[in-house]
Order: sequence, then structure tokens, then C-alpha cells
Amino acid sequence: MKRLTITISREFGSGGRLIGEKLAKQLNFSFFDRSLLSMAAKESGLAPFIFEGAEDEAANKLLFNLAIGGYVSTGGFAQANIPLSDQVFLAQSETILRLGKEGGCVLIGRCGNYALRKELNCLKVFIYAPLAERVRHVAEREKMSLSEAEALVGKMDKGRTNYYEHYTDWRWGDARSYDLALDSFALGWDLSIKLIQTAAEALAAKLSVLHQRSPE
Amino acid sequence: MKRLTITISREFGSGGRLIGEKLAKQLNFSFFDRSLLSMAAKESGLAPFIFEGAEDEAANKLLFNLAIGGYVSTGGFAQANIPLSDQVFLAQSETILRLGKEGGCVLIGRCGNYALRKELNCLKVFIYAPLAERVRHVAEREKMSLSEAEALVGKMDKGRTNYYEHYTDWRWGDARSYDLALDSFALGWDLSIKLIQTAAEALAAKLSVLHQRSPE
Repeated sequence: MKRLTITISREFGSGGRLIGEKLAKQLNFSFFDRSLLSMAAKESGLAPFIFEGAEDEAANKLLFNLAIGGYVSTGGFAQANIPLSDQVFLAQSETILRLGKEGGCVLIGRCGNYALRKELNCLKVFIYAPLAERVRHVAEREKMSLSEAEALVGKMDKGRTNYYEHYTDWRWGDARSYDLALDSFALGWDLSIKLIQTAAEALAAKLSVLHQRSPE
Repeated sequence: MKRLTITISREFGSGGRLIGEKLAKQLNFSFFDRSLLSMAAKESGLAPFIFEGAEDEAANKLLFNLAIGGYVSTGGFAQANIPLSDQVFLAQSETILRLGKEGGCVLIGRCGNYALRKELNCLKVFIYAPLAERVRHVAEREKMSLSEAEALVGKMDKGRTNYYEHYTDWRWGDARSYDLALDSFALGWDLSIKLIQTAAEALAAKLSVLHQRSPE
């Protein structure tokens, strides 16, 4: 199972990140979440702090660009022709593409399914859960009231939807941008992990056969 | 595994119906596709021919009602207050609800996931595949040219989308209306069946534990 990459897109509060982390451990894969950001920063030469919040806080593209523009005008990293938000996205996508081609990793968020849309060695997964369950989970995890959690989930949902739909021109939540999509509440986390792992192992086996037929 | 019901919504040409049929065999479940229609007709007292094409030909709600209205004006089945298309939908939904509560069956199409949205003993599945692969599959199955198949797939996609979105107020293709969604081309039919079966068996086991705890 060396050559497969798994991308996980996830609704906030669905447990998608933890599911990805467990999955990576079970498959002995590398795991990239926020670590992807510092790697992309390093590879792109852009300052790491610019990458923070790019995915979740982009509830409004204009505000996002203004906020980042604010940082940048003090830091002085701006390149004239491309908005910095787009530079950040492109830098992330290049890092995702490089990691994805190498395989043997689980990548969380950052439109990984889009960056790797042409890669055959990639299993693209979407994890979601009913709103009420996500709110309950976030309230517990963040030790906040249900109404605070509801506001946070709403804000994060809006941010991820806008970010995804701005950069991919696909609709957030549409199953057809993924190979496999799971409701982590209806199925439960353990079963979700088992199903993704079963799919990953079967695809990896198929890939290795393809690979034997046409060696690079 | 007596009490679980599996609903399968599927893109035209994705193999969803055949996947459901194989799955039903392997689980020793009853299988309802078009057979659902004659059953709904029988239970509702509406004439069977009214149900034909209700799902796939509803590319335009008005045309659908006009077409059905045409049949009805000759047959004389119309009830004054409810459009006949809605009577057909309600009759189907009632039959789906009855079958779904009984469990031990696979139900194809007709917004089964919506009719059974409140049922806990139901695994709701969506099966899709890339357009080009569906066109290729339909051309082969129906022995037609690729351009004829493309036109047919386009017409059916439009019909199912309109039908689904009219009756459910959900968006066709959105993963979040299902427990599990699979790309039957990326994963392959056999793996798709295996994943649904694994999920079904795990959920049925969980249900039977719940059942032991609180007998009816």
C-alpha cells in the first residue's frame, strides 16, 4: 500500500480529521493536516502565518483578501499580479500535488480532492454528519454552550463552503466530487474508518496490478 | 439481518440498480424496483399505468402534470384537489414507508431516502459515476451510439434531478441526504457492493442490540 493517497474533506464537527488520523495510523500512512500549511509555506517561500485560517475563515472572499492584504502590507510579501489568497491556494495545491503523487499519505482539507482530481492513485473521501450532532460534538470538544457551538459550526460551514466553491467551481457537499462519502454519525466512526480502509486496500491492490502491467 | 432496509438512489447509467439487485441477493433481501410501482398502484387504487415514467420523465413538472392529466382525462381517475403527479408520489411514498418499516429489503429510486428519512433501520445509499463512463455504459447496454447515449443520459439526469428536487426540497447529488455515497466507476461494482454490505451488516448488528435493550 505504498502508492495510494487518501484525501479527506470534512464538515466541521463531523470527526473527519480524527477519522483521518486513525486511518493513517492503521495504514501506516503519513498524516497531513495543519502540517501541510507549514510545508507549503516552506516550499513556496511565503510566510507561514499567511496560511493560517485560509480555509476556515474565508467566509467572505473579499474580507479574506482584505485581511490577508492587511497582514501582507506590514510584512511586504505581496506579488503584484496575483491576489495573495490565490497564491496561498496555489502553494498549498502544489504541495498537495507533490505529496499526492508520492502516495502513502492522508491529506485533510484544502481542496485536496480538487488538486488531485486527475490522479488515479487517489481515494477522495467526504465525511459529514447531521448539523445537530456536529453542534453537540463541537460543544463537548470545545467546552462551550450549544448555542455558541451552533454559531461556530455555522461560521465554519460558511467559510468552508465559500472557500471550496470559490477555488473549485464545484458544489460543497456534492457526492460526485468524491469517490466515497460517509455520514460519520449514521455509520459511526469505527465503521467509517473500516469502510475507507477496505476501499483503500482494494484500490491499492488494483493499482499495484496496473503497475506491474505497465512499469514506469 | 431482518429489520434493515437499504434505499438506493442512483444516477442513470451508474449501475446502481444492478448493484442493488446483487446486494439484495447476497443479503437475502427482497428487491423492489419497478415492482414497487405496481404494488403502490394496487395499494392506492390508482391505475398502474399512471405510475410508469413518473420518476424518469419528469424533466419538467408542468409537462409531467399535463401528460398525466391527459391520461387521466380519458381514464377519469383524477381527484379534484391534489395534482395527480402528487397523488402518485404520495402513493409510492406510503408503500415505501410500509416496506421500509418492515425491513429486509432493497428499494431502488422513487426518493426512498426521503420517504424513510426518519427511520433508524434504514441505510440510505447514493450511487453515481462520471458522465463519460455512464454514457459508455448506457451505449453498450442499450446498443446505441455514444451521442444517442449522451442525449439519453442528459434527459434522464434532468428528469431525476427535477423529480427529486421537486418532491424533497433537497439537492440531487448532495451527499448529506445519504448515509453512504459511492462512485461505482472509481471503486468498481464489486467493491461498491462489498462496502454497502459491510455497512448494512454492521448497522443491522447495532440495531439488533438496540432492539434487545428495548423490545417493542
